[in-house]
This record gives sequence, structure tokens and C-alpha cells, in this order.
Amino acid sequence: MKYLGLLLILLVWPAWSQTDDREQINAIYSKSLTEGRAYNWLNYLSNQIGGRLSGSVQAEQAIEYAKLKMDSLGLDRVWLQPVMVPKWVRGAPEFAFIESKPGITNNVPICALGGSISTPAGGIKANVVEVGSLEELEKIGLGKLEGKIVFFNGPMDPTNIDTSESYSAAVGQRYSGAEEAAKYGAVGVIVRSMNLRLDDYPHTGAMSYGETTLDNRIPAAAISTNGAELLSATLQLNPEIKFYFKQNCRQLQDVQSYNVIGEIKGSTYPEEIILVGGHLDSWDLGDGSHDDGAGCVQSMEVLRLLKLTGYKPKRTIRAVLFMNEENGLKGASAYAESALSKKENHVFALESDSGGFTPRGFSFDCPETDYAKVVSWKPLFEPYQIHLFEKGSSGADIEPLKNDHIVLAGLYPDSQRYFDHHHTEIDTFEHVNRRELELGAATMASLVYLFDKYGTSSTNTERGK
Amino acid sequence: MKYLGLLLILLVWPAWSQTDDREQINAIYSKSLTEGRAYNWLNYLSNQIGGRLSGSVQAEQAIEYAKLKMDSLGLDRVWLQPVMVPKWVRGAPEFAFIESKPGITNNVPICALGGSISTPAGGIKANVVEVGSLEELEKIGLGKLEGKIVFFNGPMDPTNIDTSESYSAAVGQRYSGAEEAAKYGAVGVIVRSMNLRLDDYPHTGAMSYGETTLDNRIPAAAISTNGAELLSATLQLNPEIKFYFKQNCRQLQDVQSYNVIGEIKGSTYPEEIILVGGHLDSWDLGDGSHDDGAGCVQSMEVLRLLKLTGYKPKRTIRAVLFMNEENGLKGASAYAESALSKKENHVFALESDSGGFTPRGFSFDCPETDYAKVVSWKPLFEPYQIHLFEKGSSGADIEPLKNDHIVLAGLYPDSQRYFDHHHTEIDTFEHVNRRELELGAATMASLVYLFDKYGTSSTNTERGK
Repeated sequence: MKYLGLLLILLVWPAWSQTDDREQINAIYSKSLTEGRAYNWLNYLSNQIGGRLSGSVQAEQAIEYAKLKMDSLGLDRVWLQPVMVPKWVRGAPEFAFIESKPGITNNVPICALGGSISTPAGGIKANVVEVGSLEELEKIGLGKLEGKIVFFNGPMDPTNIDTSESYSAAVGQRYSGAEEAAKYGAVGVIVRSMNLRLDDYPHTGAMSYGETTLDNRIPAAAISTNGAELLSATLQLNPEIKFYFKQNCRQLQDVQSYNVIGEIKGSTYPEEIILVGGHLDSWDLGDGSHDDGAGCVQSMEVLRLLKLTGYKPKRTIRAVLFMNEENGLKGASAYAESALSKKENHVFALESDSGGFTPRGFSFDCPETDYAKVVSWKPLFEPYQIHLFEKGSSGADIEPLKNDHIVLAGLYPDSQRYFDHHHTEIDTFEHVNRRELELGAATMASLVYLFDKYGTSSTNTERGK
Repeated sequence: MKYLGLLLILLVWPAWSQTDDREQINAIYSKSLTEGRAYNWLNYLSNQIGGRLSGSVQAEQAIEYAKLKMDSLGLDRVWLQPVMVPKWVRGAPEFAFIESKPGITNNVPICALGGSISTPAGGIKANVVEVGSLEELEKIGLGKLEGKIVFFNGPMDPTNIDTSESYSAAVGQRYSGAEEAAKYGAVGVIVRSMNLRLDDYPHTGAMSYGETTLDNRIPAAAISTNGAELLSATLQLNPEIKFYFKQNCRQLQDVQSYNVIGEIKGSTYPEEIILVGGHLDSWDLGDGSHDDGAGCVQSMEVLRLLKLTGYKPKRTIRAVLFMNEENGLKGASAYAESALSKKENHVFALESDSGGFTPRGFSFDCPETDYAKVVSWKPLFEPYQIHLFEKGSSGADIEPLKNDHIVLAGLYPDSQRYFDHHHTEIDTFEHVNRRELELGAATMASLVYLFDKYGTSSTNTERGK
């Protein structure tokens, strides 16, 4: 009976020490909301530098700026990790119109998809075949698409509450549309923008030619959702109308670039690495404030908030600003390869790449025991209206680190507005609300704090020992 | 033992019938997101009519428009409820500057507070005393404020996650500042805008002179947060600087106006009334899209969504668009008085008056048994990321209905952006996201559906009998 009391205490002891953790997390949120720097950093990245497509001068400037700011945080180490990245350039503004009769034209807003080839210098004009999906394309198949422009017009499903589900379901048209349409002899591809609302902004984004040989590649562009509606309605009236588009984008030689990395060395288990990151590159149309300037400044802010609240991490906390997420993932690959070759032990990685909107929670890709532990922390986040702790994918830049023991997580911000801005000229700073951005940084820092303190199922320590 | 099985079934029977309710609520959300009208109605209210201050032509137009749209919904009854409302007019644009030395001036953005008197035609110029709160004013007290302009510069607290808490804590300066400062002989009042960020928009809003006699009233204006920072910094450099402001707003005679009401008659318990509402009036600076055009169109959409999904309410469902919430609550009073005199039995009332942002949940002011029942419905809302079911105040327009049995509730949207727009010239339609608005309407309709089906502790039926 002697140990029964102790046993009972151990059984009901929560997986976190209530007061300390509540105080630390409260300090993190308060500092973020009163002395946060993320918003000012993002202002500079967005308005002084701008869109940061891999290989661009702006991407170089962003690397310099991020390193400078990391240097100013008093971290234990800040460095650049070299990586060769593709350099695709958009060239002159694209131009397109619907020709309902010879001489009767309506201009529509388009933009080249990232990685697309240019049209011939004089553009392409051809009849149009509208399809709702890659599957529908395959059904039409050979014999009806030769010499035509394929118009992928599958809309994003508005009924999903999590808009990223609708994006995932629709984005195949954009990514593989040109590769697939080329197999049937199409001469070009126009894709409805990945956008849940009707407006005039074309949304760019990555596409791939897969194994298509250079000779057989066809140009691909996104059309605004209003443009797509108009094209579809015009086709219904007369299937014989023509579509014209012209773009002169080019893929150049790969160029030298860098991931920007900064870390606080762990006091007790420096070899156990906790990573927090976003991607520093962006598309070129807007200034990449939500995608993913937000994730970068939030990741830097995580380190700063831990320092500012006087927390001394036991493990190494590393912020990684990945290069080239949008069109190649070269930064993520280089980082993961380096980690592997150096036998670095990443125990937890958290990515923010879903916009700087009000944080709602996280998605986790991890062992069951770790997921159960995270769920036990939910009450600590309730005062901050953080409530979603779901299983799911984490983020493209940290996925290459996946193994059987790492905990991968993605910040989950409110998703309703993201696809209004995503990959467009209106992914700009004025659409970021300071408090939403700061709450995201604090939410990330709080989770990092908890994992640092309590470890994961694979770490040296559990429960703060 | 015969009845043990039955007893067990009754004990574990949930307070809602899982499949039916899930399907009905799913239908409500789907219809709202695919066939919603709230956004188009709001577009008209905002962009064709505009700001709808009580007594204005725009308020009249909004009444006509709302009645027209309600008439088009095939409701059982649509009517206007007469109410006399105050008519305050802003007059010519306000003007203000900081005079650091004679002839050296900096203009700053101000706006008269609603209900304020004008300055003399030539404006007021006086020395300034800055205070952080009404309490601080009282401490300074007599002898130091005569002939001065009192500058209330208490900021909203950025550390509250629910921004309305910060608003409630700070808004006393705006509401009672002039009444209190006049007691000490001040000649005018300038109040820091109720805004969590630094920008150039002054935020208007209601103020009251309390019992102050006409002769002793002093003019009151809001200054933008950037203006407040500048004024405060200038005062620190030199407490002798002067502030000038001029406004020529006026309180006119009360005028005839109306609440707009539409209802679906209950099939089984028509005498039990469920109310859903917002307020049709707004301030005059913007177009009142978030405050509270959103709540109005959402309330109308609740009725439409119930009809559209084929649901036949057992109780009477009534949408009420209240007039004059902003500066008098005359519509709410008239409605409550009428309800009392007609012995109407309101069993549930839900208000949307916190902006058209992503819905997060509700606040409830109701008997414990009803609160427990509502909390048991949480799982039905989880798929829609609705998670906050808290006790708290409901809304200014439905509070007059409070008694010992009614269930009062307020829709709780994400609050981070609200005070960027609240009562300013940028409370405009382009800052409303269609999906967020539609999700709010669906969330309200789902709760109305559940209360209609299952009743409250005071209704004739429980559990759908």
C-alpha cells in the first residue's frame, strides 16, 4: 500500500505542468501581440523586395535580408545552405482573347503557368475543347483534340469547409493538364484558375511536362475565373469559336541560391533538432505575402519569441527558410539530403505555408503516441481559440524529412480567404492582418516550446525530465 | 429486468438524432455555399444604398429593399414595424490640426462622434490634457481642465484574443468622455479611435451626454490611432501645444422609421417564436457591410436556407432587421415592447452583429439546462469548424427580450479584423469575403433548425416529440 498514493499521483499527473506551461504560453502570445516583429519583417519582404521567384534578383535580396535579420536576433548560428534552383522567367505580360467571329474579340486575363514554355512569337489561335477534369480529357481521347486548345474548366468545390481539400482535388488539371493534353495532339492548354470566387485575377502555379520530350511540349496558361466563365458560355453558344493566347516565358539555366537557416543551440540535447520553417521564394505576380512570406517571418519570430520570453531550449531550435518550394522543392531536397548525410536527428518539424490568417490549429503526421500527447495539450491552446489538432499532411518543405519517428506538423490557419490571393497579383501585404499573423507565430512558438520541453516518443527525455 | 434494456437505451440516447440532423445541417451549409444570396444582397445594400444612419434617406431605401427581398422569399408574413428614431447628421467633413507653435500645424484625421454637438462655427482651439481613461480624468479633476480639450488616449488592449473584450474595456472613453470632461469645465473631447492597429481612419460611434444640460455640452470627436500617437508624442515634447477642431454635426427632430420583419409560421407551435436578427442601420462613414449589413443578410438567408432545404419549422421563425442599433436602440425597444404587449412567446433569439467573418461559434445567455443542451450539439458543428459555445452576452438588439426562460445567443465570428473596419469609412463591401459570410448564415440556420426541432426548456416539446 506504501506506493499506492504515489502511483495514483502518477496516474492522474497530466502530461504537462499546468501553471508553468500556461504562463509560458501566455507570455509568448502577449509578446507576439505587443512586441511582434513578424509584421514589420513581412512589410519589408513584401513592399521593399516583392515577389521572390526562385533565381530572381528579389529572391537573392530576400536571402540577404532574412540572413541580416536572423543575424540580429542573437542566435547561436546563422548560415546559408547552398542549393541550385531552376530559373523560370515570365517575360512580357501575357495576352489572350476569345474570338467569337473573325474580328470580334474579347480580351481575357491569363498568366503563364510556372514552368510552361512560351507560345510561338505570334501566339497560338485555335478551336477550344472544354473539359472538366483530367479524367474527362482521357475519355475524349484521340481524334478530337489534335490542333485544339484544351480548356480545363473544373471548378474548385465550394462545399468543402477546408478549402485546401478543394484545391488538392482540382489542381491536377493545372499541374498535369499540358502533359496529358499533349498526348492527344493539343496545341495549348488553358486552365481555370484555382480560385473559389469569381474575379479577374489569373492564378499561376507549378505545372509539369512529366516525360514529355521538348519537341512535344505545349504552352499552358491559367485564365481568371470570370474569364473561364465567359469562355465556357461563349463555347456553349458556338463551339467553333477560337481562343488566342501569347506568352513568352522561358526556362533558363539553374542558378545558385540558398536556404536561410538560423538556430538556437539546445542546452541539454543539442543533437535533437526541432525545425520550424516556411519558404522564402514565392510566385512573381504578387509579393508573396501570404504564400509564404508569412510562414518565413513567423518561423523567425518563433526563435525571437522564445528568446524574448527568456526560454532556454533544451533541444536545438532551428528556423529554416526554404528556397524554391513553388517550382522545384530544391531547397527542401537539399536540406533533407544534408540532414541525412550529417546524420542529424530531427525530432519535430513544423511548417507554416497556408497563409497568414487566424490560426485554428495544426495537422500532424506522426506516430500515434506523439499524436496522443499533442492532443493532451489542447487545453493549453483553448484560451487562444486554437482547436483543430488533426491528422494530415504537414507541408511540402518538411515532408522529405519524414521517417518512422519524426513528428511533422503544419500550422492550420483559417482557410476561407487563402485562394482569393494564392499565386496572384493580389497576394500582397495589405491583405495580411497584423494580429492574425502574430497569433500564428505565437501558436507555432507555443507548440515548439511544448515539444522542446516534453520531447517526442523518440527523444532522450519525456515529460521534462 | 424487462425494462433495463429500454432504460439503457434512453440513458445513452443522444439529445439529437444523429443522421437526420447531420444531413439537414450538411444541406444547409451546402446550399449556403453554392446557392447563397446573402452576398448579393449585401452587395446591393452596401454599394447601391450605402451607409444607413438612422433617419437618413439610405436607411429608408434599405427598409424598402429589405422588405422587397423578404417579400420575394415566399414567407408567410412580411411587415414593417413603425418606430421613431433619432436623426443625427454629420454635416460638412470635420477638420482638425495640432498647432505645435503659432502657424506650425499638422492636420490629423478626426470624425465627430455620433450624437455630438457641433463646435462653434469657427471651431475650437485650446490646450490639451491627455488622459488614459475615465478614471484618470477623475483623478486630475477640478482646476486643471477648465478651458482645455481632454484627449482620451487609452488604447485597446492587444493581448485579448477576443477583441470585443478590449473594445468593451476601452469604449467608455468614447461613450462618456464628453459627459465626464464637461463636469470639469473642458471645452471639447478628442478620443483615440477604437482600433487595435495604427492607421489613418477615425472611428465614429455612439456617445452620450447623460444628464448634461444643453448649455453644458461639449463637442466630441474621434481621432485616428496614428493621429492619436502623433498628438501624444507632440504633447510629450511640449505640453503647451494647442489642438484645433471643427465639426458641424447636428441632432434633428426624431423621424419615422421601421424594423423590417418576416416570418415563416410554425406548423405545430406557431405561438412559439424563434427570432434571428441584425440591425439595418449603420454608421455613415462606410457602407456598414460588416456592421451590420452582414447580420441582416445572414438573418434573411436563415429563412431562405430553411425553405430551400425543404425544412418545415414547427415553431415560428422570424427574421428581424432592427432599426437604430447604433445610436438609440429604438428599434429593439419598440420590438420588445410590442412583443410584451402582444404577449408573444419568444423562446430563442439569435443575433449576428459582430461582422461577417468566419464563424467560430456562439455566446449564450440562457438557463443552464438549455446551455447543456446546446453544448451537446457541438459534435454536429465540428465538421464546419464551429467550436466555441460559451456563455456571454448575446446582442444589443435582442437583450430587451431577456426573461427567465428565453435562450439568447450571439453569433461569434472570428474577431481579429473587426476593429480594423468598425465604424469607419473602410467598413465596406470589398472587405467581406463571400464564403465567410455564407458560413455565418449557415451556422445560424443550423442552430435555428436545432432549436426549432428540439425546443428549449420552456417550449411545449422537447426532443422533437
